[in-house]
Amino acid sequence: MITVIAGGVGAARLLAGLVRVVDPAEVVAVVNVGDDLELHGLRICPDLDTITYTLADAVDPDRGWGLRDESWQAMEMVGRYGGESWFGLGDRDLGTHLYRTQRLAEGADLVAVTEEITRAWGLALRLLPVTTDRLRTMVTLGQDDAPGPDSPGLTAGTEVGFQEYFVQRRHAVPVAAVRVDGADLARPAPGVLEAIADADVVVVAPSNPIVSIAPVLAVPGVRRALVARRDDVVAVSPIVAGAALKGPADRLMTELGHEASVVGVARLYAPFAATLVVDEADLDAANIIEAEGIRPVVAPTVMRTPQIAAELGRVVIDAGRGLA
Amino acid sequence: MITVIAGGVGAARLLAGLVRVVDPAEVVAVVNVGDDLELHGLRICPDLDTITYTLADAVDPDRGWGLRDESWQAMEMVGRYGGESWFGLGDRDLGTHLYRTQRLAEGADLVAVTEEITRAWGLALRLLPVTTDRLRTMVTLGQDDAPGPDSPGLTAGTEVGFQEYFVQRRHAVPVAAVRVDGADLARPAPGVLEAIADADVVVVAPSNPIVSIAPVLAVPGVRRALVARRDDVVAVSPIVAGAALKGPADRLMTELGHEASVVGVARLYAPFAATLVVDEADLDAANIIEAEGIRPVVAPTVMRTPQIAAELGRVVIDAGRGLA
Repeated sequence: MITVIAGGVGAARLLAGLVRVVDPAEVVAVVNVGDDLELHGLRICPDLDTITYTLADAVDPDRGWGLRDESWQAMEMVGRYGGESWFGLGDRDLGTHLYRTQRLAEGADLVAVTEEITRAWGLALRLLPVTTDRLRTMVTLGQDDAPGPDSPGLTAGTEVGFQEYFVQRRHAVPVAAVRVDGADLARPAPGVLEAIADADVVVVAPSNPIVSIAPVLAVPGVRRALVARRDDVVAVSPIVAGAALKGPADRLMTELGHEASVVGVARLYAPFAATLVVDEADLDAANIIEAEGIRPVVAPTVMRTPQIAAELGRVVIDAGRGLA
Repeated sequence: MITVIAGGVGAARLLAGLVRVVDPAEVVAVVNVGDDLELHGLRICPDLDTITYTLADAVDPDRGWGLRDESWQAMEMVGRYGGESWFGLGDRDLGTHLYRTQRLAEGADLVAVTEEITRAWGLALRLLPVTTDRLRTMVTLGQDDAPGPDSPGLTAGTEVGFQEYFVQRRHAVPVAAVRVDGADLARPAPGVLEAIADADVVVVAPSNPIVSIAPVLAVPGVRRALVARRDDVVAVSPIVAGAALKGPADRLMTELGHEASVVGVARLYAPFAATLVVDEADLDAANIIEAEGIRPVVAPTVMRTPQIAAELGRVVIDAGRGLA
């Protein structure tokens, strides 16, 4: 079994590569739900959906999230009313949130509902939300933010939900702090700790270390479970040549006092990962990474094509099995 | 001021006629919310929306509810997941429910949200939900109902929500009882009792007496307010020549022990309405209606065209002003 600690887009691409080189039924993704939100009464799980749509080959390739061939009738109407329309919900995508919300209201838990949704999309791998308890990544603004077309002005020190930072403010405002609300009370979803304990290889996907991976690890027991498997944990750096491929990982690391580089990633991950896969662009940093106590593996990590993603999947598995 | 006690389609058509013959700013509709439902986490108010869309000339003319030029992407996706797809929610229509649900979650009340929605549609008349408290029309099945394509089988005596009877079972199963859940605790929305007390004419729209008008009257104080204005209350019969124009009003009346005719309507409405407008097809019943203590006015009531609706609006206002 291969268990992958997963955020959104980067994790989705790596998972898509992995299922080309191993039996998908052997793959479990433990997925961040700190990005989840309630909007319009609906429960929205962006990371779970991005992975589902990507693996179903239904994701919009340009946006990297949401569904292909999407229409936007409902959101246009919400906009007409002057409602909250900053979080883009396509009409087909809405069907997923409507179904999930209804099933949760009926008493099904998020593990079961996620299984129903992935089954409907024909996926053979297993997606496990890290917890079915409430987990919300909260972001404290480090600077006043002027009102935008879709967002009210906010003063420095205000704490907002992750999506209000990431989508509503297009992660364009400096961040003073990140906190995972609910982490103290959350319990790992059934199967999460077992998936880590029983895996042949545990992979930390190239997701944002601060707002995608950290919230997963913040659920009590998860980080400890990784530490216990450290020798078999292979992380993939989301930072390539000092920059995030997508999103604000590099800026967030700098703002929160980390080095925005593979070395910064190595320092964050060394306590629970024995191996760090870095891109060929970071070949020069291999020695410094090694000095941080984590073994570097150098490989192409920019998943421009499914083929590169599959090759990266192979590298990660081999590294975890001590074959790299 | 003209105040109209309103259900869905029939009320919407009469209101569309009324605003052609009087200043729309002088018209208040007190609208049934017993048909409301929560589905997929959304608050859906079918009667309020049918009236809004009709008066905005945006209603689908064939269905009589929902929006014209509608798409159904979200519901198709819900169906793909095997979710609850019996209640048709078009993509544009969903925008209304998303907006309403979000605003209610933010603490706005249904009166304010309804005002926002009607303003966005450019309506000048006022729609007042009869209450902002929870009101739910419940229907007890009078006979076993076999499983349908979208509905589980149910045994006689089971109580279901109104829409589970009306839409999910296409009102095709006999009814043993109708009950308005929450009516004992509901309070009239601010402005409702005043709208009845202060109106020049109070109109009872040609809506279903059992499941549209009765739930409005079941809110404590509303029926009494109508009784106090009896001389100025003009009802329009939804039954023409012994049959409902649309929906199950005739069958429901029979099943619940009333005569499915203008006479049956007269008996139900005589305590709070001085005048009953009946269709020309019921000219013969005028004397019997009179004997029930309610003054009959005979006019074309089948609103096939906006012109007929406007003429009916004129008849109703004249009748209320003692000019008919």
